[in-house]
Amino acid sequence: MNPVETLALHARKASSALKSSPGAIRADALNRMAGKLLDCHDAVMAANAADLAAAPELSEAFRKRLAVTDKIFDYMLNRLREAAALPDPVGRILEGRTMPSGLKVRRVAVPIGVIAMIYEARPNVTTDAAAVALKSGNAVILKGGSESLRTNRVLAAAMREAAVEAGLPEDVVQLVDSSDHGAVTELLKLDKYIDLVIPRGGKGLIRAVAEGTRIPVLKHYDGICHLYIAADADPEMAADLVENSKCQRVEVCNALETLLVDGESAPRVLPGIAAALRKHRVELRGCPETLKLLPDVLPAKEEDWDTEYLAPILSIRIVHGIDEAIRHIAEHGSGHTDGIVTGSLQLADKFTAEVDSASVLVNASTRLSGGGDYGMGAVAGISTDRLHARGPVGPNELCTSKWVAVGNGNLRK
Amino acid sequence: MNPVETLALHARKASSALKSSPGAIRADALNRMAGKLLDCHDAVMAANAADLAAAPELSEAFRKRLAVTDKIFDYMLNRLREAAALPDPVGRILEGRTMPSGLKVRRVAVPIGVIAMIYEARPNVTTDAAAVALKSGNAVILKGGSESLRTNRVLAAAMREAAVEAGLPEDVVQLVDSSDHGAVTELLKLDKYIDLVIPRGGKGLIRAVAEGTRIPVLKHYDGICHLYIAADADPEMAADLVENSKCQRVEVCNALETLLVDGESAPRVLPGIAAALRKHRVELRGCPETLKLLPDVLPAKEEDWDTEYLAPILSIRIVHGIDEAIRHIAEHGSGHTDGIVTGSLQLADKFTAEVDSASVLVNASTRLSGGGDYGMGAVAGISTDRLHARGPVGPNELCTSKWVAVGNGNLRK
Repeated sequence: MNPVETLALHARKASSALKSSPGAIRADALNRMAGKLLDCHDAVMAANAADLAAAPELSEAFRKRLAVTDKIFDYMLNRLREAAALPDPVGRILEGRTMPSGLKVRRVAVPIGVIAMIYEARPNVTTDAAAVALKSGNAVILKGGSESLRTNRVLAAAMREAAVEAGLPEDVVQLVDSSDHGAVTELLKLDKYIDLVIPRGGKGLIRAVAEGTRIPVLKHYDGICHLYIAADADPEMAADLVENSKCQRVEVCNALETLLVDGESAPRVLPGIAAALRKHRVELRGCPETLKLLPDVLPAKEEDWDTEYLAPILSIRIVHGIDEAIRHIAEHGSGHTDGIVTGSLQLADKFTAEVDSASVLVNASTRLSGGGDYGMGAVAGISTDRLHARGPVGPNELCTSKWVAVGNGNLRK
Repeated sequence: MNPVETLALHARKASSALKSSPGAIRADALNRMAGKLLDCHDAVMAANAADLAAAPELSEAFRKRLAVTDKIFDYMLNRLREAAALPDPVGRILEGRTMPSGLKVRRVAVPIGVIAMIYEARPNVTTDAAAVALKSGNAVILKGGSESLRTNRVLAAAMREAAVEAGLPEDVVQLVDSSDHGAVTELLKLDKYIDLVIPRGGKGLIRAVAEGTRIPVLKHYDGICHLYIAADADPEMAADLVENSKCQRVEVCNALETLLVDGESAPRVLPGIAAALRKHRVELRGCPETLKLLPDVLPAKEEDWDTEYLAPILSIRIVHGIDEAIRHIAEHGSGHTDGIVTGSLQLADKFTAEVDSASVLVNASTRLSGGGDYGMGAVAGISTDRLHARGPVGPNELCTSKWVAVGNGNLRK
């Protein structure tokens, strides 16, 4: 048995104990994890400094993702404590009824089992994923990027200690302590022990995971997010929402990539939007009609409509009517997050009914699509898959269910 | 584009229309399907007689599954009408809240899209699958066994006509009109158009489907179902439940295969159970302890504990205490349906908490595990997978969800 297989077997065993653990024990473990991490603050920072020092050749953006600042450290602790405070997702009765036969049936949420997280730089995924998995009674196997291995070692060791102090097996959280890519290949073969894989990172990583395993995968590839500024939109609200959606953070999956402006509102709203974006030095690429209204914008190419920039670039297209907007999103969107800005109930209803994306927003920044702003706390990832979970993957989404039926000698007729 | 690809593309187009169709239209279509089938009664029966005549070499069991009797015909019509009468699964608000920011978030059930059913003999799967798929707003592609192709042609044509009369595209229901196995291989490649595959039939078929596609699959392989007769069980209820679980129908996935009897109750309950089963000529295979109490029982071999007989055979093992019963089920069960017979609340609670199967029953026949007896109506299949749906796959299970968030200019801080 190779080391990865041993680790997966241990996860399976820990999962058995965890499945029937009371929610109070799991919540206690999460709070202890936050406490233990606070005790280890200096060790975390030293390990992270060593990770950063070991990789001077990495891009500035990558180093930014890898760095644990005090703000990120606090965020990690808070996410563990928030998860502890959430209601227990395990044991929820999701539906139920008494049948005419007298059979009392109920569908009850139970843990999935063993979850493998495969991710790249950010060390906060280590604690977020452990928080969500443990909250929902699942054992978790963490395989982070090799660049963050020193940091992840300290984080995982602290969380394992805390688990034991709470009375849980230490193997409810395990780190694949290897910078070898072969370890991922090994993990992906272990459908005997692993029930779900969640990859987070670049498209290449996610594709390699999804195409390299028979284990179910929850994932998203792209976040080509749209805002449609309807004919009646308020220019000030439109400018604020576009600015926040595009600029609040450009390198994330729910940042705005394509702006659709209704032909009727374009002359009224586009100048304000362009002014707001120029303050942030956002490069604008427009369709021919956009260029007529904003002559200093670059012309958009066909591939712009299918591009997730993750950068201070925005493509702008003028559409004529909501149907054209919905068609554009169906054709070019990635089913992640799309929104409308309108005061019309009819347009809002049509848009939310017909746009088939994981998140559909009305008069809200695309940056609000996510676990925290939806009240789900920490999430293990975001799914644009249609099966099992769609949108943020929080503690509820890491549960499956079983049917419990109680009779009094009931027979099939 | 080959014929199967064309058909899948048509399904995707029909699915777009179906996704936003009101529930009343879908219910009307289902009722019209039942009516149209009734009009076609003679044609269905003639086609089925031709199917049966064309395959005289098939086993009696297979011919029984293939035959559309008047009873089965009525059943098919009733399942369509029952599905019509169920509440609309589409548009259910599954959860929701108003966040402190004022953002109103809700998670809404929406159709999955295009579902492919791959199955063997039974023509009622054709109507059941169409009923469940259409009820939940999904387009369905039906690929039945070649032996039932004539029957399925008449059924599918009638359902397509009814769909059109209700104002839906005819391609919401499509039959792969081919007895060529290559058609299945083609279907399984079309992850571009098909969102979910549900295979029903023998283990070989299901394995071939699950291992031959990147499309998500809902399935079960085995139904190695257990009843555990606890120390305190009432002998009469135990005998009735064992008889019904084993004998009501032997060839189905929720029939009993292994009986676990607590050592304390064995002397009291086993004679009555054995007498009830012998009336049905069930062959009994027991562990050594069972043989001491029932000397004329055959000795069970180790592989008996892992065998789904689908036949009048039952393996019997005496266990000592509920923990041994739960361990036996964890080791040898298939996670389909397992039950306990007890008057003890403590034992029932422990069993339902610790047995990790899709259905866990207390004092009820294993044959009651299923869509009808759980109040779900027709089902497309049964899943022992842990992701998306576990247990019977009814209209609710053929939905995914999307998040809708409504704000008033809400920004990310």
